Amino acid sequence: MFELHPRLEQDSVLLGSLPLSQIRLAKDGRYPWLILIPQVNAIKELHHLSADDQQQLMAESCAVASLMETSLSPDKINVASLGNMVPQLHLHHVARFEGDDAWPGPIWGAHPAVLLSEAELEQQVAAWRERLGGISNFVSA
Amino acid sequence: MFELHPRLEQDSVLLGSLPLSQIRLAKDGRYPWLILIPQVNAIKELHHLSADDQQQLMAESCAVASLMETSLSPDKINVASLGNMVPQLHLHHVARFEGDDAWPGPIWGAHPAVLLSEAELEQQVAAWRERLGGISNFVSA
Repeated sequence: MFELHPRLEQDSVLLGSLPLSQIRLAKDGRYPWLILIPQVNAIKELHHLSADDQQQLMAESCAVASLMETSLSPDKINVASLGNMVPQLHLHHVARFEGDDAWPGPIWGAHPAVLLSEAELEQQVAAWRERLGGISNFVSA
Repeated sequence: MFELHPRLEQDSVLLGSLPLSQIRLAKDGRYPWLILIPQVNAIKELHHLSADDQQQLMAESCAVASLMETSLSPDKINVASLGNMVPQLHLHHVARFEGDDAWPGPIWGAHPAVLLSEAELEQQVAAWRERLGGISNFVSA
């Protein structure tokens, strides 16, 4: 059974899943930020996935990024596999807007997170689950 | 004909190419840092590539990252498509080591680049071209 790293669990909310990846919403209110986590244990790097899973992850990532673009019309989407502190493979997808908190730099480490209230978080979770419903194979949590 | 963004040209050196992507070495001496640039004009986001090119890029990225891991034994590899300032799609691959300049944060924006001397750069370029020769389809510049 797939075991999610506790730090990823703590910092995000499960929206649902695609055939390979969980999709989670980061709890940081400064940016629209989704995280894809391939549900495969003991994988630290993208290239540690099987060739099939690499391709599946790319397809899922592009479907999610495309949805973010259509829904939000951001100036740019940042996609990154970092994991220096949390060694379970997870792929960030962040919609960026000119003038946002870290613009034009990357978001990581630029000022502390701004946590959403429970109500705001619930509302965003519902909105994202509805949008993601447009991707075939998405199963809502 | 593919037109490379001048900022990417300025900040990196061409090592060679794979079927889809140029591979360039970033001129920042603080980290082993390679950049893959799909040789397709007018592409800003990963998901703007054709499905075939998305898959090809993923395969090329994983081959390069795997080579970086085998050659350098880093603690982690960071792979990212950012492009907030340079809107031509380019995929960073950075080998990270505990205690490096920005560790454990991402490298971007953490302190100014440390430019290599001409001699150091030439030596690194030669070393990378040799390593990349181990990837089938790599054509050295």
